[in-house]
Formats: sequence, C-alpha cells, structure tokens
Amino acid sequence: MRSQYCGDVNKSHVGQEVTLVGWVNRSRDLGGVVFLDLRDREGIVQVVYDPDLPEVFDVACSLRSEFCVQIKGLVRARPDSQVNNQMRTGEIEILGTSLTVLNSSAPLPINMDKNQHNTEEQRLKYRYLDLRRPEMAERIIFRAKVTSAVRRFLDGNGFLDIETPILTKATPEGARDYLVPSRTYKGQFFALPQSPQLFKQLLMMSGFDRYYQIVKCFRDEDLRADRQPEFTQIDIETSFMSSAQVMDKTEEMMRSLFKELLNVDLGEFPKMTFAEAMRRFGSDKPDLRNPLELIDVADLLTDVEFKVFQGPATDPEGRVAVLCIPGGAKLSRKQLDEYAKYATIYGAKGLAWMKINDLDKGLEGIQSPVLKFLSEDVVKGLLERTDAKSGDLILFGADKANIVSEAMGALRIKAGEDFDLLKGDWKPLWVVDFPMFERTSDGGLHAMHHPFTAPSGMTPEQLEADPISAISDAYDMVLNGCELGGGSVRIHNSEMQTAVFRILGIEEEEANEKFGFLLEALRYGTPPHAGLAFGLDRIIMLMTGTSSIRDVMAFPKTTTAACPLTNAPGFANPEQLVELGIDVIKSEEEKETPE
Amino acid sequence: MRSQYCGDVNKSHVGQEVTLVGWVNRSRDLGGVVFLDLRDREGIVQVVYDPDLPEVFDVACSLRSEFCVQIKGLVRARPDSQVNNQMRTGEIEILGTSLTVLNSSAPLPINMDKNQHNTEEQRLKYRYLDLRRPEMAERIIFRAKVTSAVRRFLDGNGFLDIETPILTKATPEGARDYLVPSRTYKGQFFALPQSPQLFKQLLMMSGFDRYYQIVKCFRDEDLRADRQPEFTQIDIETSFMSSAQVMDKTEEMMRSLFKELLNVDLGEFPKMTFAEAMRRFGSDKPDLRNPLELIDVADLLTDVEFKVFQGPATDPEGRVAVLCIPGGAKLSRKQLDEYAKYATIYGAKGLAWMKINDLDKGLEGIQSPVLKFLSEDVVKGLLERTDAKSGDLILFGADKANIVSEAMGALRIKAGEDFDLLKGDWKPLWVVDFPMFERTSDGGLHAMHHPFTAPSGMTPEQLEADPISAISDAYDMVLNGCELGGGSVRIHNSEMQTAVFRILGIEEEEANEKFGFLLEALRYGTPPHAGLAFGLDRIIMLMTGTSSIRDVMAFPKTTTAACPLTNAPGFANPEQLVELGIDVIKSEEEKETPE
Repeated sequence: MRSQYCGDVNKSHVGQEVTLVGWVNRSRDLGGVVFLDLRDREGIVQVVYDPDLPEVFDVACSLRSEFCVQIKGLVRARPDSQVNNQMRTGEIEILGTSLTVLNSSAPLPINMDKNQHNTEEQRLKYRYLDLRRPEMAERIIFRAKVTSAVRRFLDGNGFLDIETPILTKATPEGARDYLVPSRTYKGQFFALPQSPQLFKQLLMMSGFDRYYQIVKCFRDEDLRADRQPEFTQIDIETSFMSSAQVMDKTEEMMRSLFKELLNVDLGEFPKMTFAEAMRRFGSDKPDLRNPLELIDVADLLTDVEFKVFQGPATDPEGRVAVLCIPGGAKLSRKQLDEYAKYATIYGAKGLAWMKINDLDKGLEGIQSPVLKFLSEDVVKGLLERTDAKSGDLILFGADKANIVSEAMGALRIKAGEDFDLLKGDWKPLWVVDFPMFERTSDGGLHAMHHPFTAPSGMTPEQLEADPISAISDAYDMVLNGCELGGGSVRIHNSEMQTAVFRILGIEEEEANEKFGFLLEALRYGTPPHAGLAFGLDRIIMLMTGTSSIRDVMAFPKTTTAACPLTNAPGFANPEQLVELGIDVIKSEEEKETPE
Repeated sequence: MRSQYCGDVNKSHVGQEVTLVGWVNRSRDLGGVVFLDLRDREGIVQVVYDPDLPEVFDVACSLRSEFCVQIKGLVRARPDSQVNNQMRTGEIEILGTSLTVLNSSAPLPINMDKNQHNTEEQRLKYRYLDLRRPEMAERIIFRAKVTSAVRRFLDGNGFLDIETPILTKATPEGARDYLVPSRTYKGQFFALPQSPQLFKQLLMMSGFDRYYQIVKCFRDEDLRADRQPEFTQIDIETSFMSSAQVMDKTEEMMRSLFKELLNVDLGEFPKMTFAEAMRRFGSDKPDLRNPLELIDVADLLTDVEFKVFQGPATDPEGRVAVLCIPGGAKLSRKQLDEYAKYATIYGAKGLAWMKINDLDKGLEGIQSPVLKFLSEDVVKGLLERTDAKSGDLILFGADKANIVSEAMGALRIKAGEDFDLLKGDWKPLWVVDFPMFERTSDGGLHAMHHPFTAPSGMTPEQLEADPISAISDAYDMVLNGCELGGGSVRIHNSEMQTAVFRILGIEEEEANEKFGFLLEALRYGTPPHAGLAFGLDRIIMLMTGTSSIRDVMAFPKTTTAACPLTNAPGFANPEQLVELGIDVIKSEEEKETPE
C-alpha cells in the first residue's frame, strides 16, 4: 500500500511519484492550499493539495487529526525559504495527486501536540494514541533496536537464547512474588519469577555453557517512578568463565550497543572496589560525571572538644567526612537548612557547614556554626585537605560510617545537580569486591547480592569463621550513577552453598524445602559458572534520556499496578475461583451486608 | 578455560595443543590406557591417557561419569582403522597431558545412556542431567538457532520487537485463563494472556506498523502430549498489508528458516480453500504427504435401498464419501473392526467396507457386508470413481457432512501411516477461505478463528444478513498435517466489530465490559491490519522430528502441570494470601478435621 515510509522521503526522490500511508498529524487550509503533515512511525512529511484537482482537494479539506489515509503524489524540492532543517523530510514536500481516507477518527480524547495537558491516567487509557506521538514512538522503536543489537551480539558470541518458566515455585517467604493458583493442585500456587536466577544456574548444570534471555520478571511491590510490576532483564550466565572474563564480555556488549545506537564510545570501564566507591563517593553506584568527592577528615578531629565530631572520629565504626562544594558559600541560610533536611532523610542527625567566604582574611573570612570548636590548626588542616578556595562551602558528616557515607553521598548528588557540576555525558564503571554479607537491623546477616554468590578465594570453613569480612566475587556495572546490571561468580558446590545458607540463618529443613533441588543438583558435576543480569528498561531510560520507566514500555501499569486501558485487574468468574479452590475474602463491610 | 569446544576439534588441529572443558561422557581403562569421552554442548571428543604421566594417569583412572573436568592435550589423527565417521571428531583423538577435576559427581540418579530406562518423572526431576544428553542438548540448541533466525528475518524486514504485558485483563468467561490475584485491588485478578491478540492490534492502532514478538502464552487446560501450560508464539502483526502480502512474507520467513537450518527447500506453498481441504482430505490441516483422498460418491447412491447410504446421499447436509486404500484388502476382520472403532471416536456410527479381492472375477471378487444392497451398476460406478485395483480396500463414510469429513479424514491419516503411504519429507500449504462462523451444539454461532477476524469483502449489513455463508479473510499455514500458525485480516472499524459481537450473541453490555477499550480504540483512525501467530514449540517439534513438546522445552511441566524439579506448585504463606485478599477453600474432609 506504500512505496516507502513518510520519514524516509528525501531529496533523492525529487521528481518521483510516491505512495504513502499514515495519520494526519496536522492539516491546515492556508489561502486555498491544504498543507497535510502526514505521519508514520518513521517520521512526518508535508503533502500539499491545491484546488486544481477539485475532488481530491475536497477530501483534503475534510481531513481531521488522526484520520488514517493513503496518499499518492509527486516529490518536489521545497523553495529554499521553506526548507525546514528540523525535519528529516524538511527539504522536500509532496504535491498530492490522490487521497484515500482509510479510516476516519472521532475527536481525540487526549492532546496529541501538548502532552503536558494530558494526565498520566489519560495517557495510559488512550495508550494507542499516546504511542503515536513521535517522542513515544521513537522510544519504543529505539527499544526494539537495543534488544535486536543485544541479541545479535550475544548470538554472535555463542550465547544460547533459552526460555525458562514463568510459572515457577512459590517460595514460602516470597511476600513479593505474584502468585498463580493451580487448578490441578488445589490450594497450591505457582509464583511468577522475580528473576530466572536458579533456572539459569540449572542451565549451566545442564551443560549449555553460555545462556541469555531477554525475559520478563515480576515483583509485587509498591511502585515508584522507575518500578513496574513486570520488567525486563537481559539475563546472562556462563560456565568456565572468571568474573574478569564475564565483565570483559558484557562491557564489550555495552560498548558496542552505545557505539551502534548512539555513536558514543564508552571507552574502557574503570574498576573500583566497593570500599573505594563508598569512601570517595558514598555510594556503590557513583556518578563519575560528578567531580565532588567525600574527603575523610577523622584524623584531624580526634582531639576537638566537640563530641559530634570527636565521637565518630575516634569510633572504629564511625566516620567523619566532608564535601567541599565549589561556589557553595553563596547558599543562603534557608538553602543550607534544606541541605540539612535532605541529609536527615538518609539518617544524618544534622549538617555542620563551613563557608569559606574569603581565604585572604584567615579565620575572619570563614563562617561556620562549629568554628568555635575548631582550633586554627584544625581549620588549616581542613582547608589544606579539601583544597578549598574562597567561595567554597564545606559540609560535614560525622556519625556511624554507613550513615555518613549514605548521607554525604546523597548530598554529593544533590550538590552536583544544584551547582551544575556534572562533566561529560557518559561515565561507566565497574564496582567490584562487595562484602559477601551485611548486617541486618536484628543483628543477623543478609546476602549483599544473593545467597548463590561465591566468596572470593575462601573455603567454606574460612567463610564460616569470619563471614562479615568476606568479599564476594560480584560485580555491578554502573553508568552515570545508575546500576545497569549486576552479577557474580556463583557457588558451584553444595558444601559452600550449605555454609552460606547456615551463615544466613536458613535452617537445614528450610534450605531443603526451598532449595533442595539446587543442593541436589550441585552434587552432579556442576561446572564453575558466573553471570549477570541487566535491567533493560533502565538501560533504555538512560539511553533515551527519560526518567520514567513508563515512557519506555508500550503498555505499562499505573503506580497502583493497574491498567487504565484494559481495566485490569478485574473480577473473576466465581465458578472459576471454585475450580481453583480459592475464595475471595469479603471485607468486614461486605460481610455485614446480607447476601 | 578452553581453547575451543570439544565438538569443534578436527583434523585441522592435528599437532596443536588444545585445552578443553566438559563432562565425562564415558571413561574406560582398556589395557592400561584410559579412553575418556569428553562431552560439551557441541559434541564429544576422545582423550587418551597413557601411564607415561603417572600423576595425570592416576587422576584419569579415578574419573566417573559426569565429573566436570578440564583437560590439556595434543591433537593427533586416529589410525585409519579407528576413524569413527559417526562422530564429528571421529578422525582425531587427543593425547592427554593434563587433567583437572573441576567438580566430581555423585552416582547418577538417571541413566544417561539408555534414556528408555528413565521415567518421564525422573527425566523432569533431574532435568539438568537429562538436558546433558546430546539428543536433548541438540534440540535446545536448535531451538535457539530457530529463534535467532526468525528474529534476524523479522528485524531485517522492518518488524519491531515490542513487549506486551503478561499481567493482563481477566475475561469473565475465560475459564482457561491463569489468574493472578492483585494485592492493590483485593478480590480482583489479572489473567496471564492466552495470546497478545488485542495488544498487538492496539500496537497497530498505535502506528507501529510491523510488530513481532516471540512470546510466552498461557492456557490452563488439561494437557496432552503436545500441550503445555506455557507455550511460545511467534506473534506477528502488520498494518497496510493484505492477507496475500502477509502470507507471502511469512512463507518467505518459513522457507528461509528451513533452508538455513535444515538445508531444505520448501518451495512455494500451494493455497487450498477450507472447502477443498475438507472435501479432499477431511481436514483443515491436511498432510499432503499422504496420497489418499476422500472421494464423494453420494450421486451414485441416491437410489440404493440401504438407508445408511441413501439417507445422507439425499440429505443436503449429508455426505457420502469413500477412501480407497491400496493393498487394504489384506486387512483381517479384526483389523477392520479396529478401523471401525477408530472411526467412531470421530462420531461415525459404523464403518462399511468393500474388499476388492480380484477385479477379474467381477462381483465374485468383491467382498463386502453391504454388497447385497448395491446394484452391479453402483458397484461399477464406485470402482470407476475410485480407480480401485485388485487388493484395494474401500471404506465408506455416510452421515452428516462434518462427521463424514472428520471420521474419514482420521481414517485417511491412520491408513496413511499403517500402509506406509507417506511420500516426501515436507509438504507445506496454506489453507484459506475459512467460514467466518460455525454452528455450536446449541444452535448459536462460534467464530471459527476469533471474533476479531474480518470477513472477505462484505459490509456489516451483508454479514448480519447471512453470517453462516460468510468467508473470513483468514489463513492457516500447514505442514505435514500440523498447523504451524494461523492468522487473519482483522476488523478495523467498530461497526463491523459490533456486528460480529452481535452475531456471536455477545450482548452490548458484555461487549463493552470485555472489549469496550477495543471498540473505543477502533474509533480513532485504526489502520487496516492483519497478522499471524506461529506455534514455536510445534515448529521445533516438526523440525527436530520429536512428538513430545517436552522434548523441545528446557523446563516443561508434567501432564498435571507440575514441575518435579522445583516441586512447583507449592503452598503459599498464609499471610501473603491475606494480603492478596484470598483464601484457600478447604475440602470437605479437611473441614471436618478440627483445626
């Protein structure tokens, strides 16, 4: 029905007849000539109808937005004065010779031009119209290009695309699993997978060696702007590869993706230990575009007579660090209060600050509520260590190490944005050498990655003797302050796996109930294996520069996990519930109403 | 950890040192030399250890099946007498110089060599071992090659891979939907999609023009050998393409798939109407390798004094057809009884037969329980029409047309197999011009494809005036008697869609409740669109020559929809059920037991 896409008509077609199909993006009658902007998924082209062909012209006059039409016409160059360099087709226009309305459109329920006038609910309810808007269409098309490029890379590197089940095992503690009642086994449930972690490990045990899948994962949790009940992972697992090799291969993949689709050369990704990332940036996913760094100053403050500093400075679990913000001295008292308030979100009890108004004036040129507690030597030490200049602001964090890192890390990000400090477009890195475990609030231990992550160079005995200092063979790929993906070398023998379960306080019975099949499988020649999973939606968000995950999915759900388009979820047929052996619990109110 | 795959070592590597990893497929100590068959996903290679290196030799002696090992060695040509042409690596062997056990294996719970000794349950419980068996590994690898080739074809033809939701709307009548309780909207449910049909139509309304997805679909039904609760579709939809264009493009895809992966040239697919397929083959998915055809003989039998024939022969809704089976006269009475019994499965009340023992003997040479009812002219007519030879068997079907077609169609397939009549390896075709509707047992009408299928060249008024004779613009791709996929031109305006709902007896209120969003979407410039969906699992089954869908999936479920590997489904945490607002109905027995 067409000779090419609207967006693909260009100067090389001048003098040719083309046939196009698409939607009326805009149609204007200007002085007896109808200018039709015809749109398809590849772009917009201008078609001109003049009254020389009265029948066609009459049809052109009747067009309204979003009519679906087929046109024929002659491509001609626009006069120089009318060339529009903003449009791919801006050098040409089409003199329309025929026009067929394939389908008309009722008046539109959303504003196609001014998206800011549409609510999120409207956009989702009329998603098929929202997706026609070029900025949305381009993102969805870009996403298809990304998955295609990823697959080409992985196929070309011997990775096998293998499907794992969506109806999987419900884990007793899995409050975050979506459940699916079984009809055959009444009262029992499948769970939708949060990730194919165990299945991909089983595929390594099955000998497939290099696996990938671009796969839906599910999490029933309260949603935020960047979360959806179903999201997509680029899931990868390999046998016989070290963590360094997995990192090399997936880094190569990401580099080729950016090169092919954005013409960006990401270069070699630096590696940074978790400890260094926390120390310098207060984050395990530092945005390296931000030049600010946390500077440790505890050694300068061990003797000050100010408990807020001196306590943490002398506490082995404490930390005192500062952030020196160039030009920050211009912040008002109110703005500083906002910074302090922001820091408390991350657990800080307050925020000490020091304005370096004028270095030439010595202590006189420094303004700070804590100045009275600090000797001239201490101040001098701070200025030297931070290399502060006149006009800078120093912010202090003093508390338990994790609170200081988190709060100062958050302030670093905020200041980076507020003071427009970000340099460069793309700053990737690997964060490595994570602790195996972190302490939970009840004093137990929690696996920092997941319980299948292998420790670096330790026996099960060594691990059990001192779990808290164990380092895992795990790695996260970070770009511009976002975790794109993470992975690890996995445990490949049952002794180590049992030891980790024990350290995590999982009783033998529980371990067998939940992971018995894994422990069993580990007994039969399991190969050493390692893998990684990328968050596809987040990669697309970063690459297309949008901050909402809903903008990179065709049919996302609202933040209450509903679909305004199809009205899902909905009520089920009562007979079907009986078949499934389940019942809907009536709320107290409903119970009182007689049936 | 390796220089190449085991299966890839060949004569060109003779004299080179290689490093391989894999599993001990077999290890034999033959006269002081250990022969190790080392296996990875690409194949098996023979490694030889002799006692010259005592330490390595000792390790080699300790190997047992399915140990995971790394070896180094020198590739050498086998002596001519030991060349094994059955193996890809059969021209060479490796003189082992080192051997590292990466992981040992406990004695195996299934028989890796003799699969016939394993129950289906065992194979699924120890799937990671079952999948190591080369025939299974090859199928899964083949499947990955198919999906990769399909994607390359579709990507190359401008189709966009777009993901549609897994958590979708529960349809009130959808007894076959898997349900997922919503936590936010207690008492309401999502459904897992039986296909992304409506979403792919919405994508066309969104302007994406060419869509595909290799996507999981779900059906909660009683399972057969070729059914699974979750299965995979190659789902395709296009705008602005006619049914002929969709057929051309997808036929080209299938042809390129067979060429690339099996080096088979499928040639051009013939097109056959539904009416012709039913008439000649008694099936809408005829296996054209089978030369047998149903032959209509009603006109010969209108006057016979045998009600069983004469009734259907004169009934406008009746049919009398015969099948002439070359060499079939040798069937015993018992075997004929089996054929008759088989026909009754498909609704036939009995099965009249006629053995053509010896044509030279005239009626004397013919044996049949119904011979007494037939005049010599009638018999002559039958012999002429069927071109029967001495030794042939004629089977009679006489009943309502649909019963005759179905029963004789089934007998045709059975006879084709029993008498080894199938010719040629691959016989594809398109079946087209399906009726829009078929009668249900209660006299209503049922959509033969689905309610979104467009009729061929009719207005809504014409369709409503005579729905039963309407032909749809639908098409099925059939290969060797299997439906590989099917599709249709879709309805693209709301008047036609409403008319079809009305014909199907779907009340306006119900239509709005279930499909209101579709009817609404049809109002805003919906493009003409058409599509198709292939059953991926079935394609792989055909291409790999297996009859079980479980053999082409990595982690299938049993026929009771359970997973013996992970023990899914399982019991859920009661607190989670409360959160979801559902309750498990206790069986009568449990209720009587005090809690």
